[in-house]
Amino acid sequence: MGIINLDHISSNPILPEVKTAMIDAIRADYHNPSSQHSAGELAAERLDKARASVAALINAASPKEIVFTSGGTEAVNHAVKGSALANAKKGNHIITSNIEHNAVIRSLKRLKGQGFKITSLDVDGDGRVNPQDVAEAITDKTILVSIMHSNNETGTIQPIEEIARITREHKIIFHTDAVDSVGVVPMDVQQLGVDLMSFGSNTFYGPTGVGGLYIRRGTMIWPLLEGGVQEQNKRAGTENLIGIIGMGRAAELARRDMTVRLEHLEKLKNKLLSDLPLTIGDIIVNTPSEASLPNLVSVSLQYIEGESVMLMLDDDNIAVATRSACATGSLRASHVLLSIGRSHADAQGTLVITLGMDNTEDQIEHFLQSLQNVVKTLRDISPLYQKKMQAAG
Amino acid sequence: MGIINLDHISSNPILPEVKTAMIDAIRADYHNPSSQHSAGELAAERLDKARASVAALINAASPKEIVFTSGGTEAVNHAVKGSALANAKKGNHIITSNIEHNAVIRSLKRLKGQGFKITSLDVDGDGRVNPQDVAEAITDKTILVSIMHSNNETGTIQPIEEIARITREHKIIFHTDAVDSVGVVPMDVQQLGVDLMSFGSNTFYGPTGVGGLYIRRGTMIWPLLEGGVQEQNKRAGTENLIGIIGMGRAAELARRDMTVRLEHLEKLKNKLLSDLPLTIGDIIVNTPSEASLPNLVSVSLQYIEGESVMLMLDDDNIAVATRSACATGSLRASHVLLSIGRSHADAQGTLVITLGMDNTEDQIEHFLQSLQNVVKTLRDISPLYQKKMQAAG
Repeated sequence: MGIINLDHISSNPILPEVKTAMIDAIRADYHNPSSQHSAGELAAERLDKARASVAALINAASPKEIVFTSGGTEAVNHAVKGSALANAKKGNHIITSNIEHNAVIRSLKRLKGQGFKITSLDVDGDGRVNPQDVAEAITDKTILVSIMHSNNETGTIQPIEEIARITREHKIIFHTDAVDSVGVVPMDVQQLGVDLMSFGSNTFYGPTGVGGLYIRRGTMIWPLLEGGVQEQNKRAGTENLIGIIGMGRAAELARRDMTVRLEHLEKLKNKLLSDLPLTIGDIIVNTPSEASLPNLVSVSLQYIEGESVMLMLDDDNIAVATRSACATGSLRASHVLLSIGRSHADAQGTLVITLGMDNTEDQIEHFLQSLQNVVKTLRDISPLYQKKMQAAG
Repeated sequence: MGIINLDHISSNPILPEVKTAMIDAIRADYHNPSSQHSAGELAAERLDKARASVAALINAASPKEIVFTSGGTEAVNHAVKGSALANAKKGNHIITSNIEHNAVIRSLKRLKGQGFKITSLDVDGDGRVNPQDVAEAITDKTILVSIMHSNNETGTIQPIEEIARITREHKIIFHTDAVDSVGVVPMDVQQLGVDLMSFGSNTFYGPTGVGGLYIRRGTMIWPLLEGGVQEQNKRAGTENLIGIIGMGRAAELARRDMTVRLEHLEKLKNKLLSDLPLTIGDIIVNTPSEASLPNLVSVSLQYIEGESVMLMLDDDNIAVATRSACATGSLRASHVLLSIGRSHADAQGTLVITLGMDNTEDQIEHFLQSLQNVVKTLRDISPLYQKKMQAAG
């Protein structure tokens, strides 16, 4: 048996059709879409086609509202810094949540150093922002709200539509980091009502290093990369056309296969959610049962350390992610898990299982069996677990 | 006969060996280099290998001094904005030249709006900055000098080493935009003495949409893209590994074949420089005979319009670039050509011919013949040219 990939969030395989599109593009010697002579025309056509496919995936009113970026991180940096700086004359207050991705957190930290004031909202035990809290945090200086669409550690989906109704009423720009949602769940920017939305391509089986930023027409925002006139003057630099062609193809497939994919992922997710508590005791499921991603299950395995679990599963050819501090190269426990009320110790024992179309029910069963063994081995040598068992008597 | 590409600066073909490396990478399903389990290790190894190849091409002291970017434009924006903002407490004065690429110009314009003062130096008739002018422009508030290594419209190579001696003496950060030099002429950052150097991959037959920034160890600079801990915390975001692998392979080949390439390009360039004045009258060669790129010839064809020349050559399957305002989508004549003393009219009639390894002497001869016909046709209908001929009697 090959590797069982239950860490799709860090690395999705590229779909065969996407690979073919990219390999064809490499072989076809596409020219620079901005080159002035006819050799560039075909390149420009392919760029337009990819843009239209991505626009269709998120139901943008026009392909012109899509800017291709080098990935979700660039899109987030562009959205947050570009909109804040462009609107600094109107005000300097930004509202966000306590569970954002580091791309948002660090962009906002940078802006804070440049004089912006940040309000970071608490979330409830499901990791959810209360739209009423957004409304109450708004001041006459508020220029931007940045709340992620879904969380990469718990799978929680935020009430984006409700928040957008509030921001629109106050004419405040609303950015949502949707890197883990676009291409996974149906997304409609017109229905959501957001002004800016960041996303990546690998989330839906496209290549890494390419992504996009949705910019609603009329949104005041500075470019992050300046120079040439590419991307309707919103993002300079000769395009990564091979990557963009891959992303465009992946977007077409994500749109076409959305229902089939959702069905497959939800079946596996439900199996995990129902079988995990039957297989292993002393666990806390961090993924809310309502309004969460179909492909993510977060579970805290109490009394043991996530990194050890990950390494032992790796020996059994199973890839999962952990939010343990050592494994993520951070000195602190996950800010997301602490925000939803986990203790430091429980945060350390947390696995994030992310499913993909290549996973099967057999793989889930194999994983559960392997996890059961790993957890038993680690708890047998865990002083904390022994102490707990003695106390329970 | 296929298309004769004399516009390599806007689009180089990807070398067959580079295509193979990229196609292999696509097929091999590389995982995210930052993923925590063993599937990511091979990806991390390939990333390290590419970084070492790029470091070797420019003789960086360590591969850790290379940050991969989404291209030359991102590298320039990162270098200019990142170093200026990180050093704003020390001073707010920046020195540059009048002939920089738009990526530098627009980044500096943005900084100007944020309180920085910019001194932009004149160049001589060869498009060259006088190092003495840099020395004289330095104040106790100067924190950054940004002068390009070679110019994309004239091919002029700047006296970077001499300027670096001055900036080092004053402990001022020196950035050079070397997008049109790296991989074309031998480059040695240790000998040049620069602190920051931007470059792209397509210049040396790698893919578009990938590039790099050399950051000398100890240089104070902020990241442009913030979030994850990729690229030694200097550039967040999951890497475009397929593109980077292509760039790494292209860097190896550029280093290996540098001498052969220089010889081939210089032979073609010299043929152009010697035959152009014999073939067509009333021209001004803008490329200096000393210290210029081996692959670029800029020529102003007087009394006619560059865009018409380009379109008529395109009909004959010859691709060249023009600096005519219409063709570049700008309202004004090229700032570079005006800076070296061309008139508005002559700037409008300027072609930029950029050579590549796929060009042959036969192609140059065919081009000269075709150009002769095109120029004759256009001058026959040019009122300016007719007037000039009448005046000449």
